[in-house]
Amino acid sequence: MSASLQGYAVFRRLFSSRVTLESSSSSSRPLRSVRRSFVLGRPFSAMAAAKFDAPADGGTAPKLLFRQLFEKESSTYTYLLADVGHPDRPALLIDPVDKTVDRDLTLMKDLGLKLVYAMNTHCHADHVTGTGLIKIKMPGVKSIISKSSGAIADAYIEHGDKVYFGNLFLEVRATPGHTAGCVTYVTGDAPDQPQPRMAFTGDALLIRGCGRTDFQGGSSSQLYHSVHSQIFTLPGDTLLYPAHDYKGFTVSTVEEETKYNPRLTKDEEGFKNIMENLNLPYPKMIDVAVPANLVCGLQDVTLSAM
Amino acid sequence: MSASLQGYAVFRRLFSSRVTLESSSSSSRPLRSVRRSFVLGRPFSAMAAAKFDAPADGGTAPKLLFRQLFEKESSTYTYLLADVGHPDRPALLIDPVDKTVDRDLTLMKDLGLKLVYAMNTHCHADHVTGTGLIKIKMPGVKSIISKSSGAIADAYIEHGDKVYFGNLFLEVRATPGHTAGCVTYVTGDAPDQPQPRMAFTGDALLIRGCGRTDFQGGSSSQLYHSVHSQIFTLPGDTLLYPAHDYKGFTVSTVEEETKYNPRLTKDEEGFKNIMENLNLPYPKMIDVAVPANLVCGLQDVTLSAM
Repeated sequence: MSASLQGYAVFRRLFSSRVTLESSSSSSRPLRSVRRSFVLGRPFSAMAAAKFDAPADGGTAPKLLFRQLFEKESSTYTYLLADVGHPDRPALLIDPVDKTVDRDLTLMKDLGLKLVYAMNTHCHADHVTGTGLIKIKMPGVKSIISKSSGAIADAYIEHGDKVYFGNLFLEVRATPGHTAGCVTYVTGDAPDQPQPRMAFTGDALLIRGCGRTDFQGGSSSQLYHSVHSQIFTLPGDTLLYPAHDYKGFTVSTVEEETKYNPRLTKDEEGFKNIMENLNLPYPKMIDVAVPANLVCGLQDVTLSAM
Repeated sequence: MSASLQGYAVFRRLFSSRVTLESSSSSSRPLRSVRRSFVLGRPFSAMAAAKFDAPADGGTAPKLLFRQLFEKESSTYTYLLADVGHPDRPALLIDPVDKTVDRDLTLMKDLGLKLVYAMNTHCHADHVTGTGLIKIKMPGVKSIISKSSGAIADAYIEHGDKVYFGNLFLEVRATPGHTAGCVTYVTGDAPDQPQPRMAFTGDALLIRGCGRTDFQGGSSSQLYHSVHSQIFTLPGDTLLYPAHDYKGFTVSTVEEETKYNPRLTKDEEGFKNIMENLNLPYPKMIDVAVPANLVCGLQDVTLSAM
């Protein structure tokens, strides 16, 4: 196993000439979208890029292994991504659920993958995250969430950061509005990264829908700007993978949602009007899930065990 | 729209020099697997290949659009495949469910696709097929099922047949054992067809499992030979898409199932022993679903309306 995977190091590079955004971009698109983060009112430091376990060897061609996994009770999608071109086959999980941790870890073993990160797009209100359980069952795995989520994790990401697994990476885009700490993870924009790109949107953008905006620091205005500036600016063929689907869809594209999303094709006022009149019931899991998810899904375990 | 899509014609070529298997094969693998169909006791005519709406223009490069869709109550996957490289964007649905027909047809419209075939892998016992409803809502769509299923459809396919949609095609492989009429549809083996290949296995092979063999002409011995001769002989990276999953998996590969399927990694006697001792309850939907599915899911509609 390479040194880059054995240890755990976060290289956050604020206002530094070593910021990696330019060097990994094959076009000016990501830089533009980062600049647009000002619209969201995020601090300037969010423009800086961080690398999580940047690859030490760099000699192998990256090859994505991708799996979409479903938890039926909460209709949650968990995503497994791995670089199977890298000798260590490093992998990460986005939005794991506590009830399906054993399934996910067994799959990881079957596929011969080395799980390095268990990441969340946000502090979920409808299910308990699997990150804490994963850390107990597989010591060495590190949990990741946005700094602005307010939740405990091993590493906090911000807009513009990059999370490397092998020679593949995910860009972090701040997409608040469903919660104040929501992010979208987007596969890298570089010649050796997967094409078309893939965006893991959490609850910011659902297929033909979006997450509610009436709890956890939600804001319909903020969500509108997040989706339009950070997701709809991606190439039209970008594959969109949400945290949930309730109708049996598994994937959409930027082109499709810009055309057919019944909420986000409206103008801002129209969108806000829809979101403020949804009349949804109080989230049935929120009083259990949010306190748990603020501590990695392990409200009954002392933090020292994490 | 091309003439090949306006009309409906089946060109079944029995014992003919125009059999298309050889011309489309880039390796000898498909031919070998067709020869192995003798093991299954299928008639010799099953070796012949048929083309369903073979492309008339042939001038455009095929490009697959693929969507996996889920029906939660019966945990059924419906698959949408289309050739979006073809000017008509012809599409087919594998294993549509009656309850999700409107979702599927709306998606078809959003994506600008021309649905030409609604196909089943077999006569399902756990849900009512959507093919009949689709034919009513979208006249011109043709239903397809295996001849040996005993069900009514517009066209009956047999082992070795090819089903074209634009310049893409599916091979038909007989995989009886769950029912007597089960088939697996496999994307074509030719340089311009999708890589890796994709196999839609119905209930013959599930992810880490398989369909039961105690109803509808089922046979554990036959299923064992079907999977081993028709599916496990495909390249290891072939993506396996089953008709159902109950644990939240969406896809597997031949390599994975040959290594980790807890039933089909056993020898034949071990497999039969497992299948004969499952002690499963009587299928709760079978008395509704099978009679309906024998008539395209429309037991209350006169056949003339189909």
